[in-house]
Amino acid sequence: MKPKKIPNISVDCVVFGFDTTTKSLNVLLINRYLESKDSNDILVDDYVLTGYHVYEDETLDESASRVLKEFTGLTNQYKKQFKAFGNPDRLTNPKDLVWIKSEAFNSRTITIAYYFLINTEDIDLENNTHYAKWFPLKQLPEIGFDHKEIIKEAHEDLKVKCLSEPIVFELLPDKFTINDVQDLYESILEIKIDNRNFRRKLINKKYIVPLNEKQVGVSKKPAQLYMFSKDVYEKIYQKNYLISI
Amino acid sequence: MKPKKIPNISVDCVVFGFDTTTKSLNVLLINRYLESKDSNDILVDDYVLTGYHVYEDETLDESASRVLKEFTGLTNQYKKQFKAFGNPDRLTNPKDLVWIKSEAFNSRTITIAYYFLINTEDIDLENNTHYAKWFPLKQLPEIGFDHKEIIKEAHEDLKVKCLSEPIVFELLPDKFTINDVQDLYESILEIKIDNRNFRRKLINKKYIVPLNEKQVGVSKKPAQLYMFSKDVYEKIYQKNYLISI
Repeated sequence: MKPKKIPNISVDCVVFGFDTTTKSLNVLLINRYLESKDSNDILVDDYVLTGYHVYEDETLDESASRVLKEFTGLTNQYKKQFKAFGNPDRLTNPKDLVWIKSEAFNSRTITIAYYFLINTEDIDLENNTHYAKWFPLKQLPEIGFDHKEIIKEAHEDLKVKCLSEPIVFELLPDKFTINDVQDLYESILEIKIDNRNFRRKLINKKYIVPLNEKQVGVSKKPAQLYMFSKDVYEKIYQKNYLISI
Repeated sequence: MKPKKIPNISVDCVVFGFDTTTKSLNVLLINRYLESKDSNDILVDDYVLTGYHVYEDETLDESASRVLKEFTGLTNQYKKQFKAFGNPDRLTNPKDLVWIKSEAFNSRTITIAYYFLINTEDIDLENNTHYAKWFPLKQLPEIGFDHKEIIKEAHEDLKVKCLSEPIVFELLPDKFTINDVQDLYESILEIKIDNRNFRRKLINKKYIVPLNEKQVGVSKKPAQLYMFSKDVYEKIYQKNYLISI
């Protein structure tokens, strides 16, 4: 039996990925497409976040994980609930209203927003049935509902969070160079970081472990590869209360 | 005309206050009381957060501010939406079910939780019709619904937030001593802070402005009074990206 949807409560997932080649922080979006039944005119053709109604028997966290799994096949990824969006007018622009009618959901829907951090190598988007695609955060396409605002707020939350916990490694392949980490921080924080300081600080962290391997298939001098050890991090980590008011 | 409630969406407000005398971080709770119509037996007599349904025409933020105003008379207080709570079983213990029946609301209600930071001197709880009372966070009474968990998570969020922004001054009177600030940080963070270091660091902040006044009516040597200048803070504040992974 199909689970029953709660008609006015949904989850939306901002799925972040990092492209180490283009050094771009990306968001996974799905195509929202609707043709008129009479004329074949295109009524809606834009992009939205992965999301769906909450089912009656699941928690909000379970709902978000289910949505991620349905759209990407992935489970057990880093996720964070960061905000609920519920303005009365959040789904009331003309295209949204056409879409809502076709999907039979409540125009006063409150959505609980999550973000996920994904290693893009783990996803295969070829032949996916949802027309899901990565877009650079800096070059987003036309976006439906209030999802542009949701993406913006997810990014703001990620900026703060990535400075207090080593969550950026969720976005990298298992083996990475120090430059990859720097590129990633720079793309999240939208700043330039001093190269030498950063390298020295990072290499000194016990949980950044050098491997007996170097990059392969690069045109310049191959760089040393590292891994992030969550075990080491959790063992040595002591919450550092820096009164920084 | 009375605004229409959304039956399955509410806001709950964790209202924090600080008692400078007892050095206690407090939470404002209201009495939930219900007698049986037939026997006068007490069916429910415990405490819950201030909260209510969201109305159809208001934003979530507006809803939280309305609830605060109804219960305390206060407007324009520091508020933060920190999490949505929506487990299917969050309102299903026996007392909650009795209460829900009497109030006619949906047992699968999702609540958007906010916390507010209040200067306790601004509230007069004498003769309030909701039997609202301050309770020390460390000595909470019997609490209904899942509100104990909501309070716990609000406290966790406040711990992190108070280290990156000077929000603690929202909890203090306009004129305070350095000791008051230290007591407050200690009660929020549940740690002991080194006295001399803290004093020196705090006095050096340009936005902690000494007044030409000392404490009055204290038995020990009266201490210097200070104020927090939001204007100065906002002028000199530069987002300090400390990579502290």
